Amino acid sequence: MDKNLLLLGIDGGGTHCRARLTTFAGQILGEAVTGPANLRLGLGTSFSSVFEAVGQCLDRSKLPQATLGRTVACLALAGASEPRHLAAAQGQKHPFHKTVVTTDAHAACIGAHGERDGGIIVAGTGTVGWSIVDGQTYRVGGWGLPLSDEGSGAWLGAEALRRVLWAWDGRIPWTPLLRSLFANFDNDPHAIVDWSAAASPRDFGSLTQAVVDHATRGDAVATELMQLAAAHIDTLAARLVASGATRLVLVGGFGPSLKPWLAANTLSHLVEPEGDALDGALRLARSAAASLARVA
Amino acid sequence: MDKNLLLLGIDGGGTHCRARLTTFAGQILGEAVTGPANLRLGLGTSFSSVFEAVGQCLDRSKLPQATLGRTVACLALAGASEPRHLAAAQGQKHPFHKTVVTTDAHAACIGAHGERDGGIIVAGTGTVGWSIVDGQTYRVGGWGLPLSDEGSGAWLGAEALRRVLWAWDGRIPWTPLLRSLFANFDNDPHAIVDWSAAASPRDFGSLTQAVVDHATRGDAVATELMQLAAAHIDTLAARLVASGATRLVLVGGFGPSLKPWLAANTLSHLVEPEGDALDGALRLARSAAASLARVA
Repeated sequence: MDKNLLLLGIDGGGTHCRARLTTFAGQILGEAVTGPANLRLGLGTSFSSVFEAVGQCLDRSKLPQATLGRTVACLALAGASEPRHLAAAQGQKHPFHKTVVTTDAHAACIGAHGERDGGIIVAGTGTVGWSIVDGQTYRVGGWGLPLSDEGSGAWLGAEALRRVLWAWDGRIPWTPLLRSLFANFDNDPHAIVDWSAAASPRDFGSLTQAVVDHATRGDAVATELMQLAAAHIDTLAARLVASGATRLVLVGGFGPSLKPWLAANTLSHLVEPEGDALDGALRLARSAAASLARVA
Repeated sequence: MDKNLLLLGIDGGGTHCRARLTTFAGQILGEAVTGPANLRLGLGTSFSSVFEAVGQCLDRSKLPQATLGRTVACLALAGASEPRHLAAAQGQKHPFHKTVVTTDAHAACIGAHGERDGGIIVAGTGTVGWSIVDGQTYRVGGWGLPLSDEGSGAWLGAEALRRVLWAWDGRIPWTPLLRSLFANFDNDPHAIVDWSAAASPRDFGSLTQAVVDHATRGDAVATELMQLAAAHIDTLAARLVASGATRLVLVGGFGPSLKPWLAANTLSHLVEPEGDALDGALRLARSAAASLARVA
């Protein structure tokens, strides 16, 4: 095996793209965090975040661009669960010796459980459940807005704004959460409509913290939304358990806030992860490098 | 008053644009139906449907283009409830002697109740409630997708597709409705995701009839969706009644299918309309023409 090969892991989500460049033995050479890399945002947006992160890794490791020619990369990108997006990403020109493209959920599952069977629930800007049992992968949810990603930060933000309009209409009572969100839009329902027409999942997700904070203070709408979000996550968990994954890991930026709202049955399956999606991506890059060596 | 003035009424919704050209006395000279004219689809899309309809009215009446210079037009357009869209439509160049721009809901309310107080609930591609009481207009809902238009045909179609993905995930049981919708997408969940990413409200609304049909056969998901849609419409009706409108008219292509699912309290307020949104638009055009004469 060519021990001069370097490994690059990319964990590209709807809000951030994380990158780590290591030696084959695992020594970290450089790390970086850039903007959103979800393939649903477009190949251009996704890969510009990826390549910006790669550039920063090289800068920090003081290695030349040519180093990428002896680097095996695993790009674990949100949206790669859609065959169309996966094919586009696989067809993208890249400077690496070899590139593996997979979903961020798959890498997170590998990172969380290592060689063991298990499942993960990603609750971040989007949501998805993923398990690997007896070498079989199973996926539930994660179809993106507008149809899916129930229980995600983006979903929560959109549902909260919907209820601001309902309160403005007199359809439901105002609560402190709704008044606070409305004030962010200068108390103008049309400003909400205009903003939402162009809002990305990440934009909607930026409202998540307000909902979380108000829920801890007993706000009726915030409480309802956290309960609804948790129920959706409980459903994903139940499907993963049904797929044979008894050990589940909850990941994603929204996970810690959601946890207190989850059902006892879901909590009973949660374990601490061995590592994260970036660890999983690097593990997949290492496997790809090892199989290259076997072929050679 | 210049009795040579002609009147043009436009009822521009999310699916169709209807036009009628009449003499000042009300004699119909030409009528036409073209494509969607909702301002949310863009000024270009909306006005190309409007001008195509106007051109067809002229063709059918065998009147020259110059006739429009002595025509007072009322363009009642979905989306004009948003100040930004209204201003854009009012700023659009037009060939008419005078143009009034209003929402399709306002014209429908005028058309339905004439000089009397009352309210309307539009249940078509979108939903909105509108009332005129003691000269005051009141509006509830109608904020458009993705945040609102609950209970509309577009909302119903999106909710149905969401449930197809849930069934595919094993989150809910399959029903005949869900299998039938899934077959329309070659039993490929990714095809649903791709289609929905680019789907217009009208596209989602095209699935309405399937839901309606399956609900009459007792399909569990179709029944749930019709009940949810009706509950949203009941809420709009309650707000209109609270605004002082005791006579309500249900309009829009989805209205007749929804009616059997509405609450008794909503039904108790429903009356037959005097006329439709096109009648209302022509009535508003006639008022504008009359006030021109008063000024002159």
